[in-house]
Amino acid sequence: MTKTKKPDPHQLVFIPLGGVGEIGANFSLYGYGDQWIILDCGMGFADPIQLPGVDLTVPDPAFLEDQGSKILGMVLTHAHEDHIGGITRLWPYLKCPLYATPFTMGLIENKLKETNFGARVKRHTLDFSARFTLGNFDLELVDITHSIPESQGVVIRTPAATVYHTGDWKLDDQPMVGSITNQARLEALGDEGIDAIVCDSTNVFSKKAAGSEADVAAALLPLVQQAKGRVAITCFASNIARVQSVMEIAVKTGRTVCLVGRSLWNMWEVARNCGYLSHLPEPLIDRQAREIPAHKLLILCTGSQGEERAALAKIAGGTHPHVKLGKGDLILFSSRIIPGNEKKIFKLYDALLHHGVEVVTSYDQAIHVSGHPGQDEMRQLYSWLKPRVSIPVHGERRHQDLHAKLAVQEWGCQKALLIDNGGMVRIGAGQVEAAGRVVAGKLAVDGETLVESSDPVFAERRQLAANGLLSLTLRLDAKGALQDPLHCQTLGIPLLEDEVASLPRQMRKLVDHCLADRTAAEKRDSQLLIRELEKSLKRWCKQHYQKNPVILVTLV
Amino acid sequence: MTKTKKPDPHQLVFIPLGGVGEIGANFSLYGYGDQWIILDCGMGFADPIQLPGVDLTVPDPAFLEDQGSKILGMVLTHAHEDHIGGITRLWPYLKCPLYATPFTMGLIENKLKETNFGARVKRHTLDFSARFTLGNFDLELVDITHSIPESQGVVIRTPAATVYHTGDWKLDDQPMVGSITNQARLEALGDEGIDAIVCDSTNVFSKKAAGSEADVAAALLPLVQQAKGRVAITCFASNIARVQSVMEIAVKTGRTVCLVGRSLWNMWEVARNCGYLSHLPEPLIDRQAREIPAHKLLILCTGSQGEERAALAKIAGGTHPHVKLGKGDLILFSSRIIPGNEKKIFKLYDALLHHGVEVVTSYDQAIHVSGHPGQDEMRQLYSWLKPRVSIPVHGERRHQDLHAKLAVQEWGCQKALLIDNGGMVRIGAGQVEAAGRVVAGKLAVDGETLVESSDPVFAERRQLAANGLLSLTLRLDAKGALQDPLHCQTLGIPLLEDEVASLPRQMRKLVDHCLADRTAAEKRDSQLLIRELEKSLKRWCKQHYQKNPVILVTLV
Repeated sequence: MTKTKKPDPHQLVFIPLGGVGEIGANFSLYGYGDQWIILDCGMGFADPIQLPGVDLTVPDPAFLEDQGSKILGMVLTHAHEDHIGGITRLWPYLKCPLYATPFTMGLIENKLKETNFGARVKRHTLDFSARFTLGNFDLELVDITHSIPESQGVVIRTPAATVYHTGDWKLDDQPMVGSITNQARLEALGDEGIDAIVCDSTNVFSKKAAGSEADVAAALLPLVQQAKGRVAITCFASNIARVQSVMEIAVKTGRTVCLVGRSLWNMWEVARNCGYLSHLPEPLIDRQAREIPAHKLLILCTGSQGEERAALAKIAGGTHPHVKLGKGDLILFSSRIIPGNEKKIFKLYDALLHHGVEVVTSYDQAIHVSGHPGQDEMRQLYSWLKPRVSIPVHGERRHQDLHAKLAVQEWGCQKALLIDNGGMVRIGAGQVEAAGRVVAGKLAVDGETLVESSDPVFAERRQLAANGLLSLTLRLDAKGALQDPLHCQTLGIPLLEDEVASLPRQMRKLVDHCLADRTAAEKRDSQLLIRELEKSLKRWCKQHYQKNPVILVTLV
Repeated sequence: MTKTKKPDPHQLVFIPLGGVGEIGANFSLYGYGDQWIILDCGMGFADPIQLPGVDLTVPDPAFLEDQGSKILGMVLTHAHEDHIGGITRLWPYLKCPLYATPFTMGLIENKLKETNFGARVKRHTLDFSARFTLGNFDLELVDITHSIPESQGVVIRTPAATVYHTGDWKLDDQPMVGSITNQARLEALGDEGIDAIVCDSTNVFSKKAAGSEADVAAALLPLVQQAKGRVAITCFASNIARVQSVMEIAVKTGRTVCLVGRSLWNMWEVARNCGYLSHLPEPLIDRQAREIPAHKLLILCTGSQGEERAALAKIAGGTHPHVKLGKGDLILFSSRIIPGNEKKIFKLYDALLHHGVEVVTSYDQAIHVSGHPGQDEMRQLYSWLKPRVSIPVHGERRHQDLHAKLAVQEWGCQKALLIDNGGMVRIGAGQVEAAGRVVAGKLAVDGETLVESSDPVFAERRQLAANGLLSLTLRLDAKGALQDPLHCQTLGIPLLEDEVASLPRQMRKLVDHCLADRTAAEKRDSQLLIRELEKSLKRWCKQHYQKNPVILVTLV
C-alpha cells in the first residue's frame, strides 16, 4: 500500500473505495481541496468461504477517517442495495447529510428506522434533475433509466474539472415506470464539455442494447394467459416497472395478485407513497392465497437468486405455511442468474420440477432484461457526452478492460484509465491521471460488528470449518505431575465409537511422553508446556486423521 | 427412506447410486437374480459450505453391503474422474474385479499404485467392442465418441431384458483421437431390440450438436498464429484430442510446447503408453520454459476451472516458480465454465488481465466443444437404437425432465422414467417400471476417512465456521466453590482489545450468577452444571455479539 497523499488543491480527485472488481459495493469519493463528497454507499455479499458466518460486507471508509477532511454530503444515485445498503453500517463513521430523490430516500428512511441513530441523520430530498451546491462542488442530477425508478446520473462540476458519474443506467424508451433518459440534457452537457466519465461497465460484454421493460411485459402476458393452474413470478423486488407489469397482466388475465416476501411489500409501500403503482388494486397477503382458485391466482414472490430464507425457497421446499405450488402450476423466473448463485438457483429449479411445477426462465423466454447498458447504449451515451477520458467502474477487470478499449478505439475518448478500489485519479485542466493508491478494503458485517475482512478471526473460523477442533484440559500438581482426570473433547472431527472411547488413553500417553523429558522448571513454564503439547497433538492428528484441527490446550 | 427390496429374479434391475442430480459421481447398478454388476465408480466435488474441509465425495455403497449379494464386476465406461475417481475409496467395500479398455485401465492403474490394496485388485483389460459375460450378464462394449479417448457404451443383455447404457457420449465425425461412434453396430442393436436406454442428459438444453474437435483445432490455429508473445492454453487434461490439437498447432507455428500441471503429465504418459500422441515431440517440463523465447513458447496448462492449487492459478498469481505470463502474452481458455466455478474463474481472468495478459475464452471464440450430446445427436442415437423406454440420467432434474419429454414426444419412446439416485427400475418382458427406492447417499472424503455427508460433525464444523467458539474451563472445590483462575478462550469471535481484557471478569460474573442459586447437590452434578453454564454463556454471546458460537465448558 503506497502512502496516502493529500490531494492537490487545484484538481478534482476521484477515488472509488468500492464498486470495482471484488468490492462490488459502490462507494465513490470526489475531492476538491479538503472537501469531499461521497456518491453512493452500498453493501455487497460476502464470500461464504473466505468470510464464513458473514452475510454482508461494506467498503472500508478508513481513508476518510484518516484524512480528517470535511465530508460535505453523500449523494445516492438510486436505491439498489449495492448503492444504499451500507448507509446503516457506515453512517456513524461518516456523519454527513444524505441527498436523494423521493423513492430512494423513502427506502433509505425505512432502513434508518431500524437503527438507533436514524433520527440524527440529516436528509435532503431532491427533485429529479436537481442542481445544487455542496461547498466547492456544483452538482446536477440527470434522469436516466435503470431497473429501479429514479436512477440519476450526477454531473460534478468544480473549478478544476467536470465529471459525469453515470451510476447504474441503461437506455429504455418504454421504462413503464418513471422518466426516460434525458437525452437533450446529456447532449447539452456534451457541448458544455465533460472532462471525464465514470461509467458502469457491468453489461459491456453485450453487443446489443439491454432491451426494454415493455418487451418483458409483452413476453410475460401470453405465458400467463395460457397457464391453467397457479402462476408464480419471481423478480428483483426493486424492479417496480416489472412489479407493475406483472400486476397489470394479472388485471388483464383476471388473476388476483398475492405478494409474497418482505422486500416486495417494502418496495410496494414506498413506491405507493411516491405515487407509483397507484392505479393498481392492493395485492393479497400470503395468508389469503388459499382463498383464491388456482387459475385465478398470480403469486409475485422474492427469492429468484435461490436465497434460502426467501419466499420462493420455502415455496419450492414445500415449507411455506400458506403458498403451495405443484403439478399444473407454472413459475416464471423474470430475473437473471447473478454469478455465484448458479448452484442455489439450480437447486431451486430441481425442487420445483420435482413437485411437477413447470419452470420457465429468462434463458428459455425473453422475460427479463438487464438494467445495465450494452455496447449500443454505451456508444450512444459517449456520443452525447463526448467525454475526453473514460474511467470504467462497476464491473470486474475484464469488463473494465473491454470498456476502456471500446471507449478509446470506438467511442472517441482520448484516453481511458483502469483503476481498482483505492486507486486515485486526478482530473485537472487538460490532465486526467492515475495518482497512486489510498487505503481501501472491505469490512465484514459479523452480527452487528464491523470487522476488517483480513482479521485473523476469519482464518481461525476457516481452520475450524475445514478441520474441526481438539480441546485438551489437564491439571498438573505443584511438582508437575499430571492429575486425573484428563478432559478431552473434539468438535467436527469424525471419530468412530472405539476411537472416541480410546481418545483419553491416547491423549494421556501423548501428555506423559511430552512431560517425560521435562525438568521441573520447564513443567512450571505453562506457556512452553502448552506450546509443546499443541505441537505434539498437531502431529498426532495429522498422522491419525490426515487433518489439521485447531488444538486448544488448557493447563489448570 | 423406503425399505430396501430384494429384486425380482426374473427382471433386470437398474439402480443409479450416483450420477443423477446432486450426486454427480456416476455409480450404476444392474442386478439380475442375486447377481450385480457395477457400471462406473466416480467421485464428485463437495459443496464447500455444506461439507467444509472436504474436497471430494463418493456415492454411498451401503445398499450393496446390506444386500450381501454377489458383485460380479465393475465395468468402467471411460476415464473421467466422475466415472473412475471413486475406485480408490470404494474398492475395499466392493472387492470386485475391474473391466476397462487400455487407456481407462492405464489411468486406473496409476491411481491404484497410490493405495495399499492396489496389488489385490483383479483387472481385466478389454478390447474395444468387446463382448463378454459376467454371470447371467452378457455385456458388449460399443465405441462412441466423447471428450476422452476410448469412451464406451455398454449393452447389458440378460434373459429378462436388454438395456443400452450410453455412458458419456457425443457424435463426432472427426474426434482427432480414437475411433468414431460405431453407428452400424448401434443400428444393428436397434434391430435386435433395446428395452431401455439409460442415457446422458448433460447437454440436452443445447438444440444443436456438440460440435467437433476438428473445429476447435481449426479455431485455435489462427489465434496462435497471430500471437506475438507467449501463448498459454488451458484445457481439461483428459481431453487427449485437444492436447493433440494444441501440440500439432505448436509444430505448425514453430512453437515448443511446455506442459505444466501434474494431471497433464499423467495423461500424456498413459496416452503414449496406449499408442496415442506418438507422432508428437516430447514436451518440455516447466523448468525449461524460460529457455525458450516468448514467441516460440506454447504453454499447455491445467487449471481452467480456477482450482487454487493448479498451474494456471499459480501462473496468474505470479507465484509459479518457472512460468510467467505478462504484457503481450495470450491465454486461451479452451474449456467451459463448470457451474459453481464462476467466481473462481472470473478471479483468474481478472488476475491475468491485471498482468496485461490477453484473455480469450470459449465464450469469445469457438475454442471449446462439449463432450455431451445436444438434441440433434440424441435424436440420432434414439433413431438408431429405437429403445422402448428412456431413462434419463447424468444431469439434474431439469435436464432429465426435458430429456424425458423429448424422448417420448419426439424420439419415439413409449415411455420415460424420471428417477433419482437410489431409485430402482425393473426392466422385464414388456414392462419397465419404477419400483421404490433403496438406500442412497454420499460419503465425504475427509482426510483419509469416509464419513456420511449427513454426519453431525459437519453441522459442528458449519457452526464453528459461522460463529466461532468460546471455551471456558473452571474448577470447583469439593464444596462447589469456584477456584481461581478461570480459563477462557475464544476462536473466530471478533473482540476488541478491551473486550478481551474484560472477558475473564465477565465470565466470572456469569459463573457466579449461575452457581448462586444452586444447592450443594446440584453443584456436584457436573453434567447439569455444564448444561446450565452453556445455556447462560449462549445467551450472553447472543446479546453481546448477535452470534451463536459453539460453547465448550470444561469442569475440572
